Amino acid sequence: MQLAQGPRVRFSPFYRRAEAAGIQTATVYNRMVLPVATDDPAADYEALTQRVALWDVGCERQVQIQGPDALKLCQYLSARDLSQLKVGIAKYVPLCDHQGRLINDPVALRVDDDTIWFSIADSDMLLWIRAISGERGDDVEITEPDVSPLAVQGPSATDTVAHVFGDWIRELKFFHFRRLTHEDIPLVVCRSGWSKQGGFELFLEDGNKGEQLWDLIWAAGEPYGIRVGAPNYAERIENFLLSWGSDTDEESDPFEAAIGNYVDLGVEHDFVGKEALLAKRSLGPTRELKGLIIEGAPLEPNPEPTGLRNPNGTHAGQTRVIAHSPRFNQNLGLAIVEVPYNLPGSKLQVETADGWRPATVTDLPFDL
Amino acid sequence: MQLAQGPRVRFSPFYRRAEAAGIQTATVYNRMVLPVATDDPAADYEALTQRVALWDVGCERQVQIQGPDALKLCQYLSARDLSQLKVGIAKYVPLCDHQGRLINDPVALRVDDDTIWFSIADSDMLLWIRAISGERGDDVEITEPDVSPLAVQGPSATDTVAHVFGDWIRELKFFHFRRLTHEDIPLVVCRSGWSKQGGFELFLEDGNKGEQLWDLIWAAGEPYGIRVGAPNYAERIENFLLSWGSDTDEESDPFEAAIGNYVDLGVEHDFVGKEALLAKRSLGPTRELKGLIIEGAPLEPNPEPTGLRNPNGTHAGQTRVIAHSPRFNQNLGLAIVEVPYNLPGSKLQVETADGWRPATVTDLPFDL
Repeated sequence: MQLAQGPRVRFSPFYRRAEAAGIQTATVYNRMVLPVATDDPAADYEALTQRVALWDVGCERQVQIQGPDALKLCQYLSARDLSQLKVGIAKYVPLCDHQGRLINDPVALRVDDDTIWFSIADSDMLLWIRAISGERGDDVEITEPDVSPLAVQGPSATDTVAHVFGDWIRELKFFHFRRLTHEDIPLVVCRSGWSKQGGFELFLEDGNKGEQLWDLIWAAGEPYGIRVGAPNYAERIENFLLSWGSDTDEESDPFEAAIGNYVDLGVEHDFVGKEALLAKRSLGPTRELKGLIIEGAPLEPNPEPTGLRNPNGTHAGQTRVIAHSPRFNQNLGLAIVEVPYNLPGSKLQVETADGWRPATVTDLPFDL
Repeated sequence: MQLAQGPRVRFSPFYRRAEAAGIQTATVYNRMVLPVATDDPAADYEALTQRVALWDVGCERQVQIQGPDALKLCQYLSARDLSQLKVGIAKYVPLCDHQGRLINDPVALRVDDDTIWFSIADSDMLLWIRAISGERGDDVEITEPDVSPLAVQGPSATDTVAHVFGDWIRELKFFHFRRLTHEDIPLVVCRSGWSKQGGFELFLEDGNKGEQLWDLIWAAGEPYGIRVGAPNYAERIENFLLSWGSDTDEESDPFEAAIGNYVDLGVEHDFVGKEALLAKRSLGPTRELKGLIIEGAPLEPNPEPTGLRNPNGTHAGQTRVIAHSPRFNQNLGLAIVEVPYNLPGSKLQVETADGWRPATVTDLPFDL
């Protein structure tokens, strides 16, 4: 199926470069085009895990909260305690609704004393945060600034980025960032990114300079074999980096989604969903996101969630994503598994394109 | 560019039938696949305007508000007075945020005394409404029910739908509906739809019966030359049916978007955005959505908004959508035009794929 284009779906400042470099499939994420793969996924994976990959992730929009009440509002929105968030530091943050459902899992960046960005996953947090704040009457401005992330990931990401910005970035700690202007390009350089290989996210603050920034990084990465890429399906499953909306459904809460360790329920202040999350924690989950090892020949990724049943043939949950892992040479899956089938070692049956196959439940991240 | 598939982007219950019937391009709308066109747009247009077209619009999700406070909450959300909304009646409703920005323009259907559906455009109203209601503490349940619209549009839509459901539908007035079960398929039959030709939207209430419903309508439409279609780009511009997110940007309000006549500011109750809309109305718009007639050879639809300038070469707004109109044999555009260039008859320059072209501003809908 061809992706139709029109003004309702926006392009990032990097899109044309990513397309010219070989991207052939894309999806829509936060109402923007998100490049997904070239015609050679094995080469995409190899560049990310062995060399360096450049990703157009401009669709990871920033919601900027600015004003005297910015930190107070962010505390109220976040299930993780943000009271210690300092300028120059990023934190991974579960956001829940009043019923304790996980509605996004952004990275929060405190870019200034009174300015915080939420770098969001694929649900409309601009609307959500404006709704909450509008009802509360906070003294803040909530905007979508002209900020577009570009990710440099892989073993040679540090050498590549150091070549452009200097060796100081080698000392930058994980989830720390610096805001600067380089060759007239304003941006935030953060050690972060959605791969286990590590790397950097460059938050471009002027959409007119997207191709200039892309070209600088590309040239610096050529000695290391840089290649265009995208958030990598197989690699992120191997290393369990949660994909909100893929691994979760409309009812998932942070405990079920295996990110309960980022929820701080002991804080004194109220936050959206606190009461519901306290109740959920005391009751314990009725289902959990778990890993699956699926038997048989290599499987293609599944276009839709698939069935999961116990050996008696009755419902045991839903498989969210399936991929063949190059690293483990196994078929892996992430599945929302009903209690009591969530125990590691449970033997289940998974629905695949060519029928039902045996699978074994494991904890996350995979430890094979 | 190929559309990547994965669990984050859902399929409607009609998708496979639409694909089998020839749909070749699609987009993503409310995080679902929306079929957009076959490989023959001229034939799509001809079927819609001369015969009958069947559209998979399952992505037009329903947000169901149910409970003792349902109507009260909907009044608070809506810029249009809903106090007279009766069971069996639908109304077109602008929804605004606290700053008076237009954030969606659903059709509201009162399906029961305490149950209202908002049949939404492409922004996440489930999140938005839950946020507002969560802060207010209304006694309602807000859910996304298993409801998927299927549109039957065109001059032979009435004959087609009457063949399936009976001749009573010929008497059904515009924006009236009936809830029923037909051959074990539960659905709402509403005289409505996003085309000037008119027709029906069938709100299927059981996703397992999508292909069964599709097949019933298809068989009934065969004598009239039914064809698969989709919300039609050229036809909806010719007749100015507003497309939220295409014709509007992040800052558009209902007055600018030419739907100010659906805003009721004289009501006694408060609603989201009322104060901001009163201020906007008293100041008057600084820009307006207008029609453009663009000179020269037939133009292809534009993938992104394009520039609009006055004869002196300075900024005069932004062209949102461009299409060649088969009916008028003219290039038409919808543009957000800055005051004072919004006057009908203004001569402007429009950026197109092959350079700048002269264009004339007109009122909407087009009267050519």
